[in-house]
Order: sequence, then C-alpha cells, then structure tokens
Amino acid sequence: MDIFLIGTGNVAFSLIQAFQKQGHNIKGVFSRTKEHTKSFCEKFSVPACYDLSEIPSICDFYFICTSDYGIESAAEMLKEKNGIKVHTSGSTQMTILQKFSKDCGVMYPVQTFSKSKTVDFKNVPLLIEASSVESEAKLMKLALTLSSDVRKMTSVQRRFLHLAAVFACNFTNHFIAVSKMLTKTENIDFDLLKPLIQETMQKALTLDPVKHQSGPAQRDDSQILNLHLEMLKDEILLKKIYSFVSSSIVDFRERFKNGI
Amino acid sequence: MDIFLIGTGNVAFSLIQAFQKQGHNIKGVFSRTKEHTKSFCEKFSVPACYDLSEIPSICDFYFICTSDYGIESAAEMLKEKNGIKVHTSGSTQMTILQKFSKDCGVMYPVQTFSKSKTVDFKNVPLLIEASSVESEAKLMKLALTLSSDVRKMTSVQRRFLHLAAVFACNFTNHFIAVSKMLTKTENIDFDLLKPLIQETMQKALTLDPVKHQSGPAQRDDSQILNLHLEMLKDEILLKKIYSFVSSSIVDFRERFKNGI
Repeated sequence: MDIFLIGTGNVAFSLIQAFQKQGHNIKGVFSRTKEHTKSFCEKFSVPACYDLSEIPSICDFYFICTSDYGIESAAEMLKEKNGIKVHTSGSTQMTILQKFSKDCGVMYPVQTFSKSKTVDFKNVPLLIEASSVESEAKLMKLALTLSSDVRKMTSVQRRFLHLAAVFACNFTNHFIAVSKMLTKTENIDFDLLKPLIQETMQKALTLDPVKHQSGPAQRDDSQILNLHLEMLKDEILLKKIYSFVSSSIVDFRERFKNGI
Repeated sequence: MDIFLIGTGNVAFSLIQAFQKQGHNIKGVFSRTKEHTKSFCEKFSVPACYDLSEIPSICDFYFICTSDYGIESAAEMLKEKNGIKVHTSGSTQMTILQKFSKDCGVMYPVQTFSKSKTVDFKNVPLLIEASSVESEAKLMKLALTLSSDVRKMTSVQRRFLHLAAVFACNFTNHFIAVSKMLTKTENIDFDLLKPLIQETMQKALTLDPVKHQSGPAQRDDSQILNLHLEMLKDEILLKKIYSFVSSSIVDFRERFKNGI
C-alpha cells in the first residue's frame, strides 16, 4: 500500500522499517525539522517533503507519528489530502482527526521504541480504531501485514491501557533507576539485584502480582519501613513515594483479597 | 556439614532443598508453630524439634530463617549451643546475633522465594558477613557449595541493597498489580502489556534506566499528566503516587544528566 509518514521520531523510525520489510510503498516523509526529515529520508531511501505542496495528494494512508501535541496541526495540514489519516498515540482520541477528515483511524503499537534497538513488529500488539467500517477494514488489513496481534479498541479503552502502561513501564523503569542510584551511592554492584528483578518480573507477569506481593509493607514490618525512611535521609520525594507506595500495597492487599 | 534450621518459611523452604542437594546434613528443624515444624520436617525427612532441649548442642551452623522480628529471640534461644549462628536477613545487622554468641554471621540470598516455585540456588547471589575470620572462612566454604556468586558485604551495605531491592522488586511488583487492576476495570486484556513490560525491563537492566526513561513525565507532557490524574478519579493514593513518581522522574532527569 502507499503510505505517507509525518514525523521522524522513535515510532516513525520503527514503523517505516516494518512497512518497508512488508513491501509497502513509502511515498514520502514530512516533519517540522528540515534536517531531521533529510537525514531520516536518506537513511531509508524515501522521498523527503519539506513543504505541504510536496506531500502527495492521494495515498492509502497518512500516518501521523508525532508527539501528542503535534497530532492536531498535522491533521489540519493534511485535510485536503485523500487517504486515511491515522495517528499512533495511546492517549489521544480519534476525534481529533475527525475534525479535519472523514476517513481516519488510530493504530497504537503497544511497545516502547528507540532508534538504538530494532523491535520485531510481529510480536507488537497493534490496537486499531477507525471512523468507518471501510477504513477499519483497510487499516486492519495493513496492520495484519505488520503484526500477528491486531485488535480493535476504543479511544477510551486505549487511554486506560496507556495509563496502565505508565505504571507498568515508565514508573517501574524509574524505580530501577532509583534502585541503581541507591546501590551506586554505597558502592554496591547493581548487578547483584538483576536475578532478583528478573525473577520478580517473571512472577508478576505469570502469577497474580497481588497474591505474590512481598516486602516490608506487605508484612506490616514497621521497624524496617521506618529504617528505610531514615536511610533515605534528604531524598524528600523518594521518602514520600516510599510511604505512599507502601500504603498502597497494604490497600491492595485488603481490597483484592481474592486477587485481581 | 551439620546444619540446624530455625524457621519453616519461604527462605527455610528453599534453603533446605539447596543444602540437601549438596549433601549437607540437616540435623533438625525448629519453629514457633508445632504443626508447621511437623509438616515441614515430614516433607524433607529431617528430625523435627519441638523443644529447646531437643535441639542438638553442637552443629557446624544454626541457620535462623525467621522474620526480622524473630531473629533476636531465636539467637537468644540458641546462646548455649555450639556452632556458628547465621541469619539470612537483608536489613537486620549482624550485631543482633553477637549479643548472644561469639561465632556468628549473615548469609543473605538476594532472591525472592516462594514455596510454589523452586529457585536454582546456583544463580542466587549470597552475601556473607561473619564475626571472625574463622567463621567467615567456614561460612564462605558452605556458601560456595550452594552458589557460584558469593560475596562479602557489611551490614550497612546489605541494608542499602535491601532498600534498593524494595524499589526494584516489591514496588515494581505493586505497579504491575496497579496496572492489572486498571486494565481489568475497563475490560482490557492485561496480556496486551506483557511484551511492553518485558522490553522495558530488559532495557532497564542492560542500558541506563535514566537515559532510557520515557513517558509523559519525562517529556513534560502536562496535558497527558492531567488527563491521567483525572482518570484515576477516586484512587487517592494512586493519584499521589502518580504525581510524586512523575516529579521524581523529572528530578532524576535533571540530577543524572550523565546517567547513573
């Protein structure tokens, strides 16, 4: 299929590779920053567009892979173009595209992307939403060429999935950073914790995380809780986080006695 | 070596299997709860002790695998026994044993244990501390029969490692639980998030977690942050956690510009 891309960030970078691998035709790329567009297009040997007039007026899909802030202006820019306008965001609703275009949709890849690491799209769940039955069928067809796990999902559900992902990924990543900082401060080899972290995650994903919660908060060990707060000394934010997460662990233990 | 065990919890349960696998001689087991002692000892075909007088007066090691609260009373109980008294706790200092015994030590396995899942001790880091050079040598020798990663560590460092583990394991497990709860509330299949969680963890453990932090807080996306706080509605604790963790992500971004 003929596809045009807006954006040169991590999602665009991963998506273009997946499209090209499946033989789709990238008709061009546009982004706000000329230099980014240039180097991006050279890397993937696709046409660079530096101006609205250079964007083809007909394509099967126009993929908007910008930040959430950029989606609306991209959609407005594309309003005269013929083809399905699709954004790839978890938290932005489809209605933002419908203001400018009848045929539109969302294809949200549930994965984290970076330019330094290629992700195999075959295992990335793709969540699809579209403004019409026809657009949905066409977007579904395209998505199925990329991934073996394509599902329909409404904007409201997708928002909650994104919120859940913030806790399960962005916030857990931060806690690994906190943990690493704490070990470094005391000259402890962070690698010591890796088998424990891996085992914890494997358990959390295969068993019920509430039933397998462990640690001082779970066993109401106020002696250790107080010791840990003392050890955190001037880390005001981390102290607050330690207290509230500990309270939340106890809260979940009571609320979800039969698991989640 | 001749080993006596106090406690029948998850650590004792895993440790006895590792000892038996390496051919060590379990001279008996004692715990506060008679029924637990009985079923535990039947399972592993070892002598059950229900009374102080039944505990052998000489062993190479007496392992205290109780909760942190139980360590002191166990150490006091064993004060007339001849052998090295060892506890297995991350956060309790060795001095608690030295009050009652000249020969003592700590062997802290950096892993999470449960009775439903056998852990291969060979890959579990064991952190060793002892009250004398002789006890340390003997404890080191024993530990090396169990694991290929045995290291000396002081009580102070071990405490920080435990605090780091609370963030990296107990708290991340809780966030997986929060994430699961949020998806269930909206009838979303939690499995959708698993590839993302796995990729995030793999990145966090192999690359610098501060440099690879992503999400709305990291990119100062106040629109999404506010939306997420709204979506959390009556979850007062989770709202506070969301705000403080987001602030901490920004704080780390500024403090650790060159990574951790």
